[in-house]
Amino acid sequence: MSSSAIEYARQNHARFLEELKAFLRIPSISTLPEHNADCRTAAEMLAIEFSRIGLQNVSLRETEGHPLVYADWLHAEGKPTVLVYGHYDVQPPDPIEEWIAPPFEPTERDGNIYARGAVDDKGQVWAQVKALESHLAATGSLPINVRVLMEGEEEVGGEGIEAFVASRPAQLQADFALVSDTEMFAPGLPTLCVGLRGMIYTEIEVRGARADLHSGMYGGAAPNPFVALAQILARLKDDNGHILIPGFYDDIIPPSPEELAAWRSLPFDEEGYRIAEVGSAQLVGEPGYSVLERTWARPTLDVHGMPGGFIGAGAKTVIPAKATAKVSMRLVPGMTPEKAFEQYKGFVAKIVPTGVEVEVRLIHAGNPCLVPVENPYIRAATRALRQVWNQETVFIRSGGSIPIVGDFANYLGLPSVMMGFGLPDDNLHAPNEKFNLRNFELGIESIICFLEEAAR
Amino acid sequence: MSSSAIEYARQNHARFLEELKAFLRIPSISTLPEHNADCRTAAEMLAIEFSRIGLQNVSLRETEGHPLVYADWLHAEGKPTVLVYGHYDVQPPDPIEEWIAPPFEPTERDGNIYARGAVDDKGQVWAQVKALESHLAATGSLPINVRVLMEGEEEVGGEGIEAFVASRPAQLQADFALVSDTEMFAPGLPTLCVGLRGMIYTEIEVRGARADLHSGMYGGAAPNPFVALAQILARLKDDNGHILIPGFYDDIIPPSPEELAAWRSLPFDEEGYRIAEVGSAQLVGEPGYSVLERTWARPTLDVHGMPGGFIGAGAKTVIPAKATAKVSMRLVPGMTPEKAFEQYKGFVAKIVPTGVEVEVRLIHAGNPCLVPVENPYIRAATRALRQVWNQETVFIRSGGSIPIVGDFANYLGLPSVMMGFGLPDDNLHAPNEKFNLRNFELGIESIICFLEEAAR
Repeated sequence: MSSSAIEYARQNHARFLEELKAFLRIPSISTLPEHNADCRTAAEMLAIEFSRIGLQNVSLRETEGHPLVYADWLHAEGKPTVLVYGHYDVQPPDPIEEWIAPPFEPTERDGNIYARGAVDDKGQVWAQVKALESHLAATGSLPINVRVLMEGEEEVGGEGIEAFVASRPAQLQADFALVSDTEMFAPGLPTLCVGLRGMIYTEIEVRGARADLHSGMYGGAAPNPFVALAQILARLKDDNGHILIPGFYDDIIPPSPEELAAWRSLPFDEEGYRIAEVGSAQLVGEPGYSVLERTWARPTLDVHGMPGGFIGAGAKTVIPAKATAKVSMRLVPGMTPEKAFEQYKGFVAKIVPTGVEVEVRLIHAGNPCLVPVENPYIRAATRALRQVWNQETVFIRSGGSIPIVGDFANYLGLPSVMMGFGLPDDNLHAPNEKFNLRNFELGIESIICFLEEAAR
Repeated sequence: MSSSAIEYARQNHARFLEELKAFLRIPSISTLPEHNADCRTAAEMLAIEFSRIGLQNVSLRETEGHPLVYADWLHAEGKPTVLVYGHYDVQPPDPIEEWIAPPFEPTERDGNIYARGAVDDKGQVWAQVKALESHLAATGSLPINVRVLMEGEEEVGGEGIEAFVASRPAQLQADFALVSDTEMFAPGLPTLCVGLRGMIYTEIEVRGARADLHSGMYGGAAPNPFVALAQILARLKDDNGHILIPGFYDDIIPPSPEELAAWRSLPFDEEGYRIAEVGSAQLVGEPGYSVLERTWARPTLDVHGMPGGFIGAGAKTVIPAKATAKVSMRLVPGMTPEKAFEQYKGFVAKIVPTGVEVEVRLIHAGNPCLVPVENPYIRAATRALRQVWNQETVFIRSGGSIPIVGDFANYLGLPSVMMGFGLPDDNLHAPNEKFNLRNFELGIESIICFLEEAAR
């Protein structure tokens, strides 16, 4: 462990926290145009800080929306290069009345700092920056080469950064990425997220009659697009949550026996999860797979809404001319969005009920992603986390996707080390968002050590 | 045939038509509050006309909405009493730009009169009134006792008249009703509608998780209410349109072999109906039943809309906490809404998928209705129609419902003679609504003769 950088971080912790509060006071809400100037202020604060701590080539890079902030330090000859990623924008604070303290007046309570953006992602960004500062201030250098890329549109789709990454600029040449925008599985349990599900988001549009018809006059002769959609959807997935599209599971690379064993040893309380997180009468899904397997490592199919027809209060006896289902499937390693969509579209075409015409449209797609735990940077991360937390790292996956991780992999060929310090109860995207102060402190130390271990 | 009344009608036809045009110029759109005064004007015009032609006890009866108009003539001692029904309100004319001539400037073209309300229902009301006038003017009396009840809320639910009828007032004591708000099966083909389907209109609400969840994080463990609804709906009706609710068909009284034979001889072109009226790739419904049987004499199940979740453009990866399906079933003679709803609700409760809770709500119900063709007033109507049209009457049914017919049956015990003179291409509720001038003329004569035949 780098005693001098760690020592510096510990001595300066109070200042680091005050700086984080200043960062949190900027209401950089990316989705609200009236906060555009605040987003720029947050970007400029980062740029000034990057210069102050000794990073070089600091620049704001304009996008169609909020600017990217870039900086680097490339003097560790013969050493690998890390691309450090985070985002300075935050979610809107609504519903504002549920906040105990105002969302942009950071407040310490019970060992946490409360503010919009505390954990998502300003607190984690600040941990990255302070780790870099600690090395530079204590030793005058960094253990490896560092490029930093921060965005201000993560909460609104990240189009600016994707376009930049897709252009494969020389500025982003690196060996791996450090993404600090995830959480730990439980308090005190160092965690690396090594897998994300991909997805295809689609619409099935069913058309029956030419125009809306009266169900009294035409019921019994005219096709009903909602009934047809129900028949299609009921044939896509059985009562056990098994997807019935032929070949859909063929290419799945299942988790290794070691990974499954590790998941079984995680502190996961299924009944507590059902009651506290889901709140349904029962959980659903494929028999023979645990909840973590079902949400992390199995493909799923969900319906998000069914536009069309009459959705007002009361009764209108219309047979609508068309109806649509918004259907998405989560994909797991081994699957590709292209093949999954073709299989799905082809199967739907085979089960079209009599009398209707069906169009299947792809709205959005993303690749699943898996970083092997044998990856040298993952191994370096686990060594660093062990030093700081005195615990073995747990490797988890996420059922969702983090688009930038896919972009780094697809466009730049970079594996991502998803090392985050949030906690499951941090209320991200919700009122009273918080970041645990101990996690902020040990997060800084974890990244200090990780940069050193990555240099080995 | 009453030569004097018929003679009077023929001599005065030009005046009758000009009067109808004046009636059609009143934009009595019941659903638009800015036309409330026009609705009253139409009611007052009817009242003035009833007095002018010699009806008695003429009165406007106020309701929560637009007034009812009542009149009677009760001097045919020992003869039956008819309750003559029609409505003076009309649909809005939208889309106004599709009208060839303005909707409230009645225009003659190609043997038709075009205006909003021409066939639905002012032209048919005027035929009734002019038939009464012709008898009274030619002979000083009517062949049977007559009560007239006109409403101004038919297009907005008819609550005022239902409340009045439900109070079973002595004013409405009669032997049968004459309802002229239907159409002829084909041009020149005298038609009586003798059956209407009933209905139950329901909502199935499915609840899964306590709150909306992210489909990445929870897909594979949290129940999806839309998927559950699709599974339920797919189990309610098979691919052939057969309803799978146990016992649902048990009490149906099928049409008699004679009625079925009569339907088979109707000039019905299934392929023309598919192309011109429905416009779907194929028609649907139970094998072994003709289109007319399926829409007139078989129960059906339709889904009208599925509120809940995300229905905007693009992608939102929500597993909604709840979703609803608006489901109605048409019922046929023999069935009751009460029993049908209990069977349906009980069956849904048995097929609830894992993880969700379901509530089935009844929004609206109506009884099916069937008037035996042996009914003496139906027989009288056929004799009258034969005299005027030189054709045998066809007996048809309608797949929809006419609530006032059910109200007359339920509250007053009256069978309805549904004798209408519209044509299938009259564009009711649509731009360029019309009424055939020959049908107006022969409609008056048909009612003149019907009153005489009903007296026998």
